[in-house]
Amino acid sequence: MTDPYAPTKDDRFSFGLWTVGNPGRDPFGLPVREPISPINIVENLARLGAWGVNLHDNDLVPIDATPAERDRIVADFKKALADHGMVVPMATTNLFSDPAFRDGAFTSNDPAVRAYAVQKVMRAMDLGAELGAKTYVFWGGREGTETDAAKDPVEALNWMRDCMNFLMEYNLDQGYHLKFALEAKPNEPRGDIYLPTTGAMLAFIATLDKPEHFGVNPEVAHETMAGLNFVHAVGQALAMGKLFHIDLNAQKIGRFDQDFRFAAEDLKGAFFLVKLLHDHDYQGPRHFDAHAYRSSNAADVWAFAAGCMRSFKILQEKVRVFNEDAEVRDILATVKTGSGDAGWWQKVAGGYSSAAAAALNAHDFSRPQMHALALPYERLDQIAVEYLLGVRS
Amino acid sequence: MTDPYAPTKDDRFSFGLWTVGNPGRDPFGLPVREPISPINIVENLARLGAWGVNLHDNDLVPIDATPAERDRIVADFKKALADHGMVVPMATTNLFSDPAFRDGAFTSNDPAVRAYAVQKVMRAMDLGAELGAKTYVFWGGREGTETDAAKDPVEALNWMRDCMNFLMEYNLDQGYHLKFALEAKPNEPRGDIYLPTTGAMLAFIATLDKPEHFGVNPEVAHETMAGLNFVHAVGQALAMGKLFHIDLNAQKIGRFDQDFRFAAEDLKGAFFLVKLLHDHDYQGPRHFDAHAYRSSNAADVWAFAAGCMRSFKILQEKVRVFNEDAEVRDILATVKTGSGDAGWWQKVAGGYSSAAAAALNAHDFSRPQMHALALPYERLDQIAVEYLLGVRS
Amino acid sequence: MTDPYAPTKDDRFSFGLWTVGNPGRDPFGLPVREPISPINIVENLARLGAWGVNLHDNDLVPIDATPAERDRIVADFKKALADHGMVVPMATTNLFSDPAFRDGAFTSNDPAVRAYAVQKVMRAMDLGAELGAKTYVFWGGREGTETDAAKDPVEALNWMRDCMNFLMEYNLDQGYHLKFALEAKPNEPRGDIYLPTTGAMLAFIATLDKPEHFGVNPEVAHETMAGLNFVHAVGQALAMGKLFHIDLNAQKIGRFDQDFRFAAEDLKGAFFLVKLLHDHDYQGPRHFDAHAYRSSNAADVWAFAAGCMRSFKILQEKVRVFNEDAEVRDILATVKTGSGDAGWWQKVAGGYSSAAAAALNAHDFSRPQMHALALPYERLDQIAVEYLLGVRS
Amino acid sequence: MTDPYAPTKDDRFSFGLWTVGNPGRDPFGLPVREPISPINIVENLARLGAWGVNLHDNDLVPIDATPAERDRIVADFKKALADHGMVVPMATTNLFSDPAFRDGAFTSNDPAVRAYAVQKVMRAMDLGAELGAKTYVFWGGREGTETDAAKDPVEALNWMRDCMNFLMEYNLDQGYHLKFALEAKPNEPRGDIYLPTTGAMLAFIATLDKPEHFGVNPEVAHETMAGLNFVHAVGQALAMGKLFHIDLNAQKIGRFDQDFRFAAEDLKGAFFLVKLLHDHDYQGPRHFDAHAYRSSNAADVWAFAAGCMRSFKILQEKVRVFNEDAEVRDILATVKTGSGDAGWWQKVAGGYSSAAAAALNAHDFSRPQMHALALPYERLDQIAVEYLLGVRS
Repeated sequence: MTDPYAPTKDDRFSFGLWTVGNPGRDPFGLPVREPISPINIVENLARLGAWGVNLHDNDLVPIDATPAERDRIVADFKKALADHGMVVPMATTNLFSDPAFRDGAFTSNDPAVRAYAVQKVMRAMDLGAELGAKTYVFWGGREGTETDAAKDPVEALNWMRDCMNFLMEYNLDQGYHLKFALEAKPNEPRGDIYLPTTGAMLAFIATLDKPEHFGVNPEVAHETMAGLNFVHAVGQALAMGKLFHIDLNAQKIGRFDQDFRFAAEDLKGAFFLVKLLHDHDYQGPRHFDAHAYRSSNAADVWAFAAGCMRSFKILQEKVRVFNEDAEVRDILATVKTGSGDAGWWQKVAGGYSSAAAAALNAHDFSRPQMHALALPYERLDQIAVEYLLGVRS
Repeated sequence: MTDPYAPTKDDRFSFGLWTVGNPGRDPFGLPVREPISPINIVENLARLGAWGVNLHDNDLVPIDATPAERDRIVADFKKALADHGMVVPMATTNLFSDPAFRDGAFTSNDPAVRAYAVQKVMRAMDLGAELGAKTYVFWGGREGTETDAAKDPVEALNWMRDCMNFLMEYNLDQGYHLKFALEAKPNEPRGDIYLPTTGAMLAFIATLDKPEHFGVNPEVAHETMAGLNFVHAVGQALAMGKLFHIDLNAQKIGRFDQDFRFAAEDLKGAFFLVKLLHDHDYQGPRHFDAHAYRSSNAADVWAFAAGCMRSFKILQEKVRVFNEDAEVRDILATVKTGSGDAGWWQKVAGGYSSAAAAALNAHDFSRPQMHALALPYERLDQIAVEYLLGVRS
Repeated sequence: MTDPYAPTKDDRFSFGLWTVGNPGRDPFGLPVREPISPINIVENLARLGAWGVNLHDNDLVPIDATPAERDRIVADFKKALADHGMVVPMATTNLFSDPAFRDGAFTSNDPAVRAYAVQKVMRAMDLGAELGAKTYVFWGGREGTETDAAKDPVEALNWMRDCMNFLMEYNLDQGYHLKFALEAKPNEPRGDIYLPTTGAMLAFIATLDKPEHFGVNPEVAHETMAGLNFVHAVGQALAMGKLFHIDLNAQKIGRFDQDFRFAAEDLKGAFFLVKLLHDHDYQGPRHFDAHAYRSSNAADVWAFAAGCMRSFKILQEKVRVFNEDAEVRDILATVKTGSGDAGWWQKVAGGYSSAAAAALNAHDFSRPQMHALALPYERLDQIAVEYLLGVRS
Repeated sequence: MTDPYAPTKDDRFSFGLWTVGNPGRDPFGLPVREPISPINIVENLARLGAWGVNLHDNDLVPIDATPAERDRIVADFKKALADHGMVVPMATTNLFSDPAFRDGAFTSNDPAVRAYAVQKVMRAMDLGAELGAKTYVFWGGREGTETDAAKDPVEALNWMRDCMNFLMEYNLDQGYHLKFALEAKPNEPRGDIYLPTTGAMLAFIATLDKPEHFGVNPEVAHETMAGLNFVHAVGQALAMGKLFHIDLNAQKIGRFDQDFRFAAEDLKGAFFLVKLLHDHDYQGPRHFDAHAYRSSNAADVWAFAAGCMRSFKILQEKVRVFNEDAEVRDILATVKTGSGDAGWWQKVAGGYSSAAAAALNAHDFSRPQMHALALPYERLDQIAVEYLLGVRS
């Protein structure tokens, strides 16, 4: 009998080199785990059933590598990918570790740093394209401030826009046709980071020269740090056709960036997220941007990785049965039929005309009728909880 | 000798009827203050030096008023405005108090409610236009969920878009030429509210039929509830030419909506906000969307209102001297000159060409030089603090 | 076949009159539900399988009732309790609704208010004792500040101490032998509330004249608002023998006081809470201090109440099987055996002696051995999640 | 003309070696500053006017140092202290950096780790005593969990109690007479830390064998991370005679541990903190547990340190004039006189008697009179703000 929750390539599950490879250093403590080589990571992820592995340039190639070293490393890595049937669906640039970026990369006050950041991305895009990546992620971890005395946020956004426009042209010029996915985070490591939410990123994209090639890479933990509803953020991205990639993990609100195992916090939120992706037929990668507890050893790291994928698949199955539940369907149908003649709404949704407006304005709506409509959302939510808990099926 | 901090009409300070008129009811307690009539509010605000008074439809006209009652109330109010030299710069609709809106107005599952909400806004826009308002604010306090089992966020955003498009056409058709300013809030009274941040609203605007007539009305308290940097949010709106209105108050992060007196919390944040508005020459209303403590009596309410305006003007004067400070100017000039040849940045900012990209790619940047650039932001921030504290001038 | 999750009297489930009786008013909206009489509440809670009903004095008896009215109301209520086999395990005082308490009750700057608050509690204790309550809860919703200019927190705590000491003597003098359970909340409705956490309350108790009669009433939502781990807070109360009562509900971190249905948020946290209560054999009431969504009608309110109890029982069953799981037991046994000779720890736990200290000081511990101990907490947590999701049993 | 804000030894300002010595590494970035030797730190702090320097054992002596190396390092450090007239008022133990402590020190599941942690503290206390420290701080950064499946919080607190009792006996046995000051933090680096607030620590102390030797070391940033009012937390410690030490810095609510320069955030909160310490005549050290921005170089680190002290002294002067302000005094006197006969309160505060209770119970209080008392707290808070801003004096 096969395990219904075992991952397959069709699940499009990916992990970053930096996730399972995280050595467990934190602001108060030394590393606890030995480094794992990229090739070892590829082997283990393949064994567990993952489909893809993602990377920052310097996850694979040290910042000070010579061209020859770089080429050898990349060749070895490509061989490992081929040997294990793994792909690199996404690549990105480390614009945050080096002290050069301590005041930002694209938004550094230092113009030399801004130019160097663009160069570093170009080279990292070359690498990503060489590895077959389809999506290029931008997470601007240092693009922000601790004191707003230091920088004008309007000027900073202008700098960022110039960089994005330039890099998109490079992408097209080189024929890479990478989709750019922008990733928001509200704070950490900077006191505050510019464009702190997925919504802010979507707005920023609208100001770019070629917005059609830009989308977002929302991350559970990042939106959750600010206490925002992640399902709503992803919903807005979907509504705009901009969900290019997604970072799955878990996080408590109002905390440092925890990057917990997917579904390790807020199971109900995870369920509604999987449901949203299912209901809107999201076909992109399911990337786990998480890391194991600092108490974990190597074996527990792989248990962690397996847990991410397994929980996703368990939730997916629950979504299927919830969506088919007769009581759920009945509640939703009734509330959406509503309290009165739906024709007035059709007038609004049908588009404006002076006549439609005049008719609508003249109509006498019955508020008592609206008050009387039953909205059994406690019952509905409890049904969802009981599916989650596995006591209804 | 005149008081340099006494407000004048040129300051464009406004208050809502609901702000100084707040009776002090909260989720755990009964009202503590007698209702104040709109006319009394106009008188007192004029006396204190305010310029404008804003309102929701039902702040002035009860939801069940007959047309005759409505007309009498409006006439009396217009007379009071004229008598006291006050204007109504902004109007808005109450789409949150009535139980009809308990599951949303534009995003209610009930189509009758959605149509009724549109009708209610049309009528409220008629009122606003009659009173001379130039800006029309939308705060969708009930547009959200407690459980995402009840509603698909993508469908909800589609409903909201239909409503906005319809209402903008009505606005233009009627010749009102009101600017629409959308106001975000992350939660409360709903568990989560759609489009929770100013950034999300700016992105939503880009999906509307006539985005050029839409902007935002960011509120200090709303962005701060989610712990987001308000200066950055307003900065993004300014960068996009979308700062149509602003709601000034104060708030602690991660709390219920406190709507404190402007600058009563986060003095440094208030300073940088006033600085941003000054540096980018914001010419719109400065609206105080705050209310007095529940412990206040009527006299203390007016002390509260005076305090809002006075603190703004004090901060404005501090901005002026900070901007002229020689040490501040020197620090900023030095860090923006940067660590190296700024020409490479000019290549990026100048726009893409294959040649520029190739040259940039080939350049050998010096990271050690970037590391060595002094960024004395602790010193800079301490200077700002000492201006705030009035010990440097 | 009986429903294993149907509540019984042995479950000691209770609700407040104010919970299922909540009319759905919030800071931005009018009530949505008709008032439910206390007698109706007793009937319905009995029907659903609850054991007890709790109350504030003014939930039952209006603040302005005459003694005769009071006596008639109480008699009717007692009859309903008897008719339906319900008890009143806990009573408390409303010290927050009336404007008299707008600056606090026991910590009001106004000495007349402080004295009146004590009187109001004495009378409410008389009522509670008459109804058979065993526990008396104190939630000081107004004991705090919006500005610390108004009150010295040290003086305020002294006032609170005087009140608590006086009221405990009254309790003993009257022979009521009520246990006093203090309930903390960090903020709302005040900007900040004194003694904001269960820990702070436990510390305050240690300063009272007769601390042995005082314990705590921790509430999920209150500790969670501040982002604190509720299981840890309850754990400290249990460790001190002070868990006299508990308020069960659900809440998102960093929000207004949501008082959601038990287990509607943070299912894993709810599981570990039920586990803690089980593992330490908590025998007190399981009180649900929650209310239905504002969108609910009366029928949905009762669905909400049923859901609170049902989720608790489902989790209780999951705790039982988790505790017996062989892999779980094995992991815990191994990590608690530890990396080396446990005898050194026995020396510490056995109590100090100069000889023990000297021996310990001289021992050469092996850090590499400590580093090597496997702590498979990702695996352990994933097992817990899979029990929660009902895919392991 | 002397600078009124220049620090002197009488100000009792201290810094930790780890504060100004922080190299600027964070979870996403490499160090940006060269290490500064302890002796260099002593020199610079003395130059700036500080009084004391504090340390963890391993700030001075590497964890793997031989006894001979240890003795040489300590001798050199003592010489530097003497040369520069600096003291070591407080010492503490690093129980968080080494991987051995990844699951806690006193609360590690591994008994060998618990015993080793006690040994490490004994040796670090020896060092602290040798350096003349009067206070010994305990910050249990690793005492917590990411999953509550791994540990019972009641058992963990028992382990911590055993350790504290043992170590206090060692302290007394050795004749060190160090005062133990316990420091709370809600989370980071652990998902949740036990005893997360100053209140929880005060409660824990009451369970120890010799509570009289234990107090607390509250930290602005730690209490603020959880959104708690720091002035109230310190107030409770003062009310209990337990404020043994204090960690001054600044922090935004709901964020990673920022440890900003004192008064860099929440100027009003900093003002009320300085006021509380002044009003209750706190005579302990004023320790700055902060670090400079990661963008700072060495010169800016010293500007940061100077700024901490300078802002404290500026606020101290503002407290003096605020306390003497006639309008402030008048408002406070009036509200504390209250709405009615204060005699009833004297009965409560005077202690319980049956007669006093009976008289109080029979009195007819006037709620309307209480409602009518003016509480001009908006005015009062605005006065505080205007002192802060330096426009009232």
